[in-house]
Amino acid sequence: MENLTFENHIASVFDEELEEIRSDLMNMGGQVEQQLEDAVRAICDADSQLAEQVIQRDGKVDKMELAIDEACVLVIARRQPAASDLRLVVAVTRAVADLERIGDEAKKIAKHALELTESGPSPMGYTEVRHLAQSVSQILRNSLDAFARFDADAALVTLEQDKQIDMDYKTALRELVTYMMEDPRSIGRVMSIMWVVRSLERIGDHAKNLCEQVVFIVKGKDIRHSDGH
Amino acid sequence: MENLTFENHIASVFDEELEEIRSDLMNMGGQVEQQLEDAVRAICDADSQLAEQVIQRDGKVDKMELAIDEACVLVIARRQPAASDLRLVVAVTRAVADLERIGDEAKKIAKHALELTESGPSPMGYTEVRHLAQSVSQILRNSLDAFARFDADAALVTLEQDKQIDMDYKTALRELVTYMMEDPRSIGRVMSIMWVVRSLERIGDHAKNLCEQVVFIVKGKDIRHSDGH
Repeated sequence: MENLTFENHIASVFDEELEEIRSDLMNMGGQVEQQLEDAVRAICDADSQLAEQVIQRDGKVDKMELAIDEACVLVIARRQPAASDLRLVVAVTRAVADLERIGDEAKKIAKHALELTESGPSPMGYTEVRHLAQSVSQILRNSLDAFARFDADAALVTLEQDKQIDMDYKTALRELVTYMMEDPRSIGRVMSIMWVVRSLERIGDHAKNLCEQVVFIVKGKDIRHSDGH
Repeated sequence: MENLTFENHIASVFDEELEEIRSDLMNMGGQVEQQLEDAVRAICDADSQLAEQVIQRDGKVDKMELAIDEACVLVIARRQPAASDLRLVVAVTRAVADLERIGDEAKKIAKHALELTESGPSPMGYTEVRHLAQSVSQILRNSLDAFARFDADAALVTLEQDKQIDMDYKTALRELVTYMMEDPRSIGRVMSIMWVVRSLERIGDHAKNLCEQVVFIVKGKDIRHSDGH
C-alpha cells in the first residue's frame, strides 16, 4: 500500500466507493426479488400474513433507493468521475428507480393477495399468475445477473425474453376476460387477478430497463426506445 | 460583457447550458401535456385519426428524453457542478423519466381509443374518463408550472391534490365494475376504459414525482417516500 502514488490512492478510494454503490444496488436487487417471490406466494397460497410482511418490507426498499441515490450524488459531487465511471453512476441511479418500482408492484400484488384471501379461496386465474410470475422472476434474475457481471451480451439476450412475457401477458388477459364473461359474479375477484397480472407485466418491463442500463454502462450506448435492440 | 472575469464567464456558459436543459425539459413537458389532452380527446370523441397521431408522436417524446439525458450527463462530465447545480441536473434527469412515462401512458390511452372506436360508439364510462382526465391534466399543469418557477410551495400544494385523484380513481373503478356486472356483454369495452382510467391515475403519480423533484431542487431535501410531505 505504501507504494501507491497519490493518484492511485485517489482512484482506489473512488473505486471502493463505486464498488460499495454497486454492491448496495445488488443487495437492493436481492431484496426486491424476495419481495416479488413472497408476493406471488402470498397470492397462490392465500397467505395473508406473508402479504402483510411484503407490504411492511416495502419501506425498506424505499429507504435503499434513497440511500443509494444519495451516495451516487455524493460521489459525483466529491469526485469528478471520468466518462465511464459517470456512466456507471448514472446507470445505477436509473436502475435503482426501476428496482424501487418493482418493489412497488410487489407491494400492489401483496395488497391484492389480502383482498383475495378475505373473499375466500378460488383457484380462478391462479394458473395464469403462477405461469407469468415464473417467467417474470426468471427475467428479473437474469437482468440482475447481467448487471452484477456487467455482461452486455447476457443483457441483450434477456431483453429478447421480455417479448415472450408480453405474449403470455396478453394471453392471460384474454383468459381472464373469458372467466368474467362466463361468471359475472366473479368479476370483482378476477379484476384483482387482472391487476396482479398487469403488475407482473410491469415488472418485466422494469427488468428490461435494467438490461438497457447494463448495455449503457458497458457499451456507452443508450439503447432505450430503440426497436429490435 | 467585457468586464466579465474568467470565472464569471465560465459560470455564465454553465448557466446557459443549464438554462437550455431546463427549457428543453419545459418543451418536453408541453409536448407531453398535448399528448395527454389529445389522447383523452381521441377517446371521448372516438377520433381514431387523432389517436394515430398521438401514437406516432410518442417517438418524438422518447427522443426528447434521450437528448435531455445526454445533455445532463455531458454537463456533469464537462463541468464540475456545485451541489445546488448538481441537484438541478439530477432532478431534471428524474423529471425527464417521469415525463417520458406520462407520454407512454398517453400512447396507451390512444391505443385504447383505437380499439374503442373500432367496436362502435358507447358512452359507458366516458364520464368517468372525462372527469378524471380533467383533474389529472390540472395536476400535470400545476406540476410543470411549479417546475418552471422552481416554486417549492406550489409543488407541495400540488402534491396534496394527488390524493383527490386517487379517490376519484377508486370511485371510477367501482363504477366500471358495476357496469360490467350489469351487462356482461360490455366487459371487453369496459376493460379498455379500465386501463385508460388506470393510465390516468399513473399520470397523476408521475406528476406528483415532478413536484417532489421541485422540492429537491429548491430545498435540497429528498421527500420521496415520506408520508404527508
